[in-house]
Amino acid sequence: MYALRMSNINAKEDAAPGLITNNLTASNLSLRRVAIDTYRENVAYLHRDCAVYRAEGFQALSKVEVRANGRRILATLNVVDDQNIVGCDELGLSEDAFLQLDIQNGHTASVSQAEPPESINALHRKLAGERLDRDDFRRIVRDIAELRYSKIELTAFVVATNRDELDREEVYFLTEAMIASGRTLDWQERLVVDKHCIGGIPGNRTSMLVVPIVAAHGLLCPKTSSRAITSPAGTADTMEVLANVQLPFDHLAGIVRDHRACLAWGGTARLSPADDILISVERPLAIDSPGQMVASILSKKIAAGSTHLVLDIPIGPTAKVRSMPEAQRLRRLFEYVAGRIHLSLDVVITDGRQPIGNGIGPILEARDVMRVLENDPRAPNDLRQKSLRLAGRLIECNPDVRGGDGFAIARDILDSGRALSKMNAIIMAQGQKPFDHNNPALGPLTFEIRANQAGAVTDIDNLQVARIARLACAPKVVGAGVDLMHKLGDLVASGDVLYRVYAGFQSDLEFARQACGRSTGFTLGRTEDVPRVFVEF
Amino acid sequence: MYALRMSNINAKEDAAPGLITNNLTASNLSLRRVAIDTYRENVAYLHRDCAVYRAEGFQALSKVEVRANGRRILATLNVVDDQNIVGCDELGLSEDAFLQLDIQNGHTASVSQAEPPESINALHRKLAGERLDRDDFRRIVRDIAELRYSKIELTAFVVATNRDELDREEVYFLTEAMIASGRTLDWQERLVVDKHCIGGIPGNRTSMLVVPIVAAHGLLCPKTSSRAITSPAGTADTMEVLANVQLPFDHLAGIVRDHRACLAWGGTARLSPADDILISVERPLAIDSPGQMVASILSKKIAAGSTHLVLDIPIGPTAKVRSMPEAQRLRRLFEYVAGRIHLSLDVVITDGRQPIGNGIGPILEARDVMRVLENDPRAPNDLRQKSLRLAGRLIECNPDVRGGDGFAIARDILDSGRALSKMNAIIMAQGQKPFDHNNPALGPLTFEIRANQAGAVTDIDNLQVARIARLACAPKVVGAGVDLMHKLGDLVASGDVLYRVYAGFQSDLEFARQACGRSTGFTLGRTEDVPRVFVEF
Repeated sequence: MYALRMSNINAKEDAAPGLITNNLTASNLSLRRVAIDTYRENVAYLHRDCAVYRAEGFQALSKVEVRANGRRILATLNVVDDQNIVGCDELGLSEDAFLQLDIQNGHTASVSQAEPPESINALHRKLAGERLDRDDFRRIVRDIAELRYSKIELTAFVVATNRDELDREEVYFLTEAMIASGRTLDWQERLVVDKHCIGGIPGNRTSMLVVPIVAAHGLLCPKTSSRAITSPAGTADTMEVLANVQLPFDHLAGIVRDHRACLAWGGTARLSPADDILISVERPLAIDSPGQMVASILSKKIAAGSTHLVLDIPIGPTAKVRSMPEAQRLRRLFEYVAGRIHLSLDVVITDGRQPIGNGIGPILEARDVMRVLENDPRAPNDLRQKSLRLAGRLIECNPDVRGGDGFAIARDILDSGRALSKMNAIIMAQGQKPFDHNNPALGPLTFEIRANQAGAVTDIDNLQVARIARLACAPKVVGAGVDLMHKLGDLVASGDVLYRVYAGFQSDLEFARQACGRSTGFTLGRTEDVPRVFVEF
Repeated sequence: MYALRMSNINAKEDAAPGLITNNLTASNLSLRRVAIDTYRENVAYLHRDCAVYRAEGFQALSKVEVRANGRRILATLNVVDDQNIVGCDELGLSEDAFLQLDIQNGHTASVSQAEPPESINALHRKLAGERLDRDDFRRIVRDIAELRYSKIELTAFVVATNRDELDREEVYFLTEAMIASGRTLDWQERLVVDKHCIGGIPGNRTSMLVVPIVAAHGLLCPKTSSRAITSPAGTADTMEVLANVQLPFDHLAGIVRDHRACLAWGGTARLSPADDILISVERPLAIDSPGQMVASILSKKIAAGSTHLVLDIPIGPTAKVRSMPEAQRLRRLFEYVAGRIHLSLDVVITDGRQPIGNGIGPILEARDVMRVLENDPRAPNDLRQKSLRLAGRLIECNPDVRGGDGFAIARDILDSGRALSKMNAIIMAQGQKPFDHNNPALGPLTFEIRANQAGAVTDIDNLQVARIARLACAPKVVGAGVDLMHKLGDLVASGDVLYRVYAGFQSDLEFARQACGRSTGFTLGRTEDVPRVFVEF
């Protein structure tokens, strides 16, 4: 006889009868590496005639738990009808999944239906429009970081927390949960500085100037960056032209100790790992909501051990942020969350009307950066000025520096060549690559876009210029991209070259050419039509 | 020299630089069937050393277009490192994908990067919170029906149109687009009737009674149903106990001509095919928003050629709809859209406080249905009464029937045995299966849940009872499920059997038993605590 419970279960808490827990049964199979690269999705292969498959009543695409060698992973099940792929007494695993178990072919493994992730109820509540609490976010982010969410569940979380679906307290909870999902570095210093830009402006490689300047001033600046996701170059892609950026974490820490700075790819440090997984869904959907942006950026900074951050929010008609009220809303959200997680934050709203610098693409941008560091007269002045101002702000984090003095200190460091020396030291420490910025190895195929009338440049479309550089195959082809000959306000004659496109392959050149045919990204008009933006710099 | 366009492109319209069109290049490969069942996702396999893979710069999981035999399909790319799976001059295709091309192993095929679906811009606008127009919905639904959306994109659409994100005009556009995505049947009659329930009530098999009753009255009722998605039995699962339900469409049409009705599975007719694809994402997320429900149900009805529909909205504390204001909002949305698509709709709000009938699971429900048809004294009266009332409403669609007379006509048809004769004729026409409702082949393993106190049944949790039946493996094991001995308001003594659980396998029995241990789904109390609902019937 069974006890009769007088309380109803909470229907909302357990609403998906399809997700049935079944972890009683398991069986022993021989593991087999199936040489299929399924890209960040663990896939398990069972033969249709496998006794376990039949007995367990698995369904195609159901999530299974594989246990071997004292480890457990979740995988999506694919059913196979070919003994050459997996036999009836074998359990196949895709390359990634196989690596996670750290075993040899033939090792014994058991497989069972996987429990639904613990946080699925919280996800369902968010989908129903409810507000989540701190524990909900912690559970969700942990399950995401541990690869327990399917692509469907991940996407649902991203879309359900899109736009204004998160209030600022929830953004704080999400940020905190993302920090907790990975490791947090501790540099054992009172002041660890960083700068970050919310993105969207081609050529905007200020980090590669700010880092050597502030490190030359003595501040600790262990900068880790991402590779390009949808842009023609990320800081890591551009730095990789000059030096090795993919370093074991211990090596990186040694460089930071020796040189007060590094400029490396952040992927090796396991900082805020849930963020990288969420991005794999946000990117194809072109979703970049304020809440997710704030949580993503600030969690990475805290995890990296930063104490002080200067954040660059560019504003312009084709920037991510298009109006001052929008920029101010975003600034307030960043400041609120930074305050809750004890990060000292200085938000700077900058001019995002056009690309920064001249080159767009890894080699072209590396050229611009080195020209600024070498005080080369061909150096793009906007890149120099913006970098100095951002570096100046960071230098003012030093309590010994008077407010307002930072810019002059930064300029002195750059003009004196100390920034270049610091950059060279970082490059040598990370592992120098051959690069001559006076003779950069640009893509051998090229075409030019010329003005078809005289006038002033009244608009440069960041999105279209970035698209053209991407089609030319930047950043994959490091010498590909766009080199701008004119910027906003410049007066050009009919026939003047506006920009040059570089590519490595004929087909890429044609794709870029077609895009230029649809829109060059440049607009010519009267000088008085050049749009103004009222930003600090 | 290139023309310089003076207008900016619309950034919103083309915001994802990652989605690059590249359909210029293609190459000839030898097709190979890879015996992996990837379940409704087309997967293409290329060897990492394949010249095409390298030249095209494909990335893992990018979408590719495969052309062969004059056909083209989209597939997700997996990279392979084993020549036993695909060689360097081969293009592997998963089973489903291979079948769609209708070719032999070794056939020549070309592969290229796929263009992003045309409607992706509209999806991005919906994600940004914009209202979509008729053409947007038409493009999106067409791309979904043609399997051009990835699981990520599908999920994004479902979540972004969840809850109140669609206004009623948009729900109409979505419905219309879903109708247009498939075929529409034309029965060449003025009056084609159907009934539908929004679901959520276990045992609610009224269709299997309503259809023979109204067909015996002479109305045309070509009923197609779904199989269970998250419930312990769908109408198609239950009917399949009695007869073949998976019939070629032409055969089905012949049965409808001969008998004025059928009770078949709807999957063969390609009606509103986008709906089935959306459900594959909605189900794991337990999403069932008003807009999607209305579009799903009404599009299927119009596609099936219905002119008149009686719609059952059950209301109760564990039903899909939990309050009368919610039911009325849903009714108005159904009525608005039905009006726009010229479907005559009669919404009936019914008592959804508990399961209908006694049995839950295919065989148990088939038993109940046959008992009602045979006027067996053991027939559950609630199932009989509800079916008669719904049938009466449909019969009143006949302009020769006076309002209010339908119920009596339906009762007469049932009591006289004419409904049973009609049902038997339908069963014979579709292909009878052996079934003896006096001796149904229930699962051999069983346990009972008894009352642990005396009292009145004050609540039966639809969700928990359904969950227990699912865990016992209904509908997959047709004899599995739950047989209720008592219903709301019944007075029971301590130790009385409340219900019996049937299963086919020991492990299923244990899962069901564990669920009963967490909550039996029954609440006992005082007679005056039985909740009332004020509904028509």
